[in-house]
Amino acid sequence: MNIGIVGLGLIGSSLALKLAEIYNDINIYGEDISKSNLNYAIENTIIDNRLEEKHYSELNILFLAIPVDQILDISVNILDKTNNKTLVVDLGSTKKPICDLIKDNINRSRFLAAHPIAGTEFSGPITADNNLFNNKTIILCETEKTDNKLLIIAKELFLSMEMHIKEMNADEHDKHIAYVSHLSHITSFMLGRTVMDKEKNEETIYDLAGSGFESTVRLGKSSPSMWAPIFQQNKKNIIEALDEYIKNIKNFKDLIETDNLLEMSKEMKEINAIKNILKGIK
Amino acid sequence: MNIGIVGLGLIGSSLALKLAEIYNDINIYGEDISKSNLNYAIENTIIDNRLEEKHYSELNILFLAIPVDQILDISVNILDKTNNKTLVVDLGSTKKPICDLIKDNINRSRFLAAHPIAGTEFSGPITADNNLFNNKTIILCETEKTDNKLLIIAKELFLSMEMHIKEMNADEHDKHIAYVSHLSHITSFMLGRTVMDKEKNEETIYDLAGSGFESTVRLGKSSPSMWAPIFQQNKKNIIEALDEYIKNIKNFKDLIETDNLLEMSKEMKEINAIKNILKGIK
Repeated sequence: MNIGIVGLGLIGSSLALKLAEIYNDINIYGEDISKSNLNYAIENTIIDNRLEEKHYSELNILFLAIPVDQILDISVNILDKTNNKTLVVDLGSTKKPICDLIKDNINRSRFLAAHPIAGTEFSGPITADNNLFNNKTIILCETEKTDNKLLIIAKELFLSMEMHIKEMNADEHDKHIAYVSHLSHITSFMLGRTVMDKEKNEETIYDLAGSGFESTVRLGKSSPSMWAPIFQQNKKNIIEALDEYIKNIKNFKDLIETDNLLEMSKEMKEINAIKNILKGIK
Repeated sequence: MNIGIVGLGLIGSSLALKLAEIYNDINIYGEDISKSNLNYAIENTIIDNRLEEKHYSELNILFLAIPVDQILDISVNILDKTNNKTLVVDLGSTKKPICDLIKDNINRSRFLAAHPIAGTEFSGPITADNNLFNNKTIILCETEKTDNKLLIIAKELFLSMEMHIKEMNADEHDKHIAYVSHLSHITSFMLGRTVMDKEKNEETIYDLAGSGFESTVRLGKSSPSMWAPIFQQNKKNIIEALDEYIKNIKNFKDLIETDNLLEMSKEMKEINAIKNILKGIK
């Protein structure tokens, strides 16, 4: 099997490691806009070869593991240049814009829109982890538009990576993911901003911050070049989520201002039910 | 050494386990308003005996590991009932209200206001962890008002628990901790609220939530009876922190609405510096 991976960040290089672990007879071609990422991946045998256009005709699957703005930029061109046996799979965190862009593309049946719910706040091939995808969910969107034979190959590959497959339409995906993923990145970034503005003296943060703060602000370490385009592409849903969130924060602030301990406790007790919901997260 | 612990939740029972591990010649008396907590602590030998008033005269140190409203309720009475060799140490997350309450108390020199920066989102003696305090900071406030001999005993005890001691005035403590701890609890609770309101179907949360959401919403599992009184007692500082936070969230929302990717990226890049700050957190 010949696999191409465009983008050798955390997702792309972790994917390469995992596939090499599962399949004996596999050739992994990779490329990255960053020379240091590409060299690191080659030197550490994360990939077998640098991906060049001349390899396109050999590929069974070509994964796009790059920021979502670049996915929009190159997908049509990639579909043009690959041949009719190659499935192109994008792994971005927004699905509606890419599905809309290629909906009438002549090669639409060779495209699969996917979103693995896996990642960390770290970036680059140095953070590659062959276990990143184990037991995680991958969302596939608009699978009815993908050629069935190619779809089956992709599904088998994801299952062999120990992932759980869920299908959803792109619109629903983007609506829900705005709340469950994109919102928490913004709340985390803004917590970081607020504390850093107040505590110009970093020593105070060292002394007073515990594991709770660390956990809540963790996503504030995430890559700007990955996240800015996600926020732009999913703008409508994210604005809605942020408006709800701001409303809830203001409501809770009112409870504090009016010393309404009863309502505060009731509210927190209801939210505590998230315990049981989180238990279900793989 | 005879130690009393009022409150056998996570903090009180973890403290009991740690002290029993360090000191050979120690008797730990404990009590809890909850009979099941008390029985659990006795049956699992987290404490040696139930603490009763008749033991007060034997105690070297009496720790108050209870919600901050209860600390205000009982501290004066506890100081009255213990004798002049006993140090009373409160372990609450707010320091100004308790310091103000007892500032003119005849027994002020037998009181030490302390805040261990340790904890998790879990509660009760079942979550006790003898390593909870290792390498963590404990903030001591207004130590000049505590009898020096008693203070030295307490400091030796905290050092033997592998804690780092920092001193600060109560006002400064409450101001900083509003940002670095209390704010992150509220942002986490409200993230939980917003997502739960939207996702009535818990299955969607299971499928779409990853480790990022889990980390950011973790503090939303925290105990309402512990946190509502903290929010009330530190109201002024928390409101200020919330106002700053809301301003930052709204500002970022504006950047998203106006497709200002440049400013979004700049903002996130600045916040990324939190990486280095967090490295310093024990």
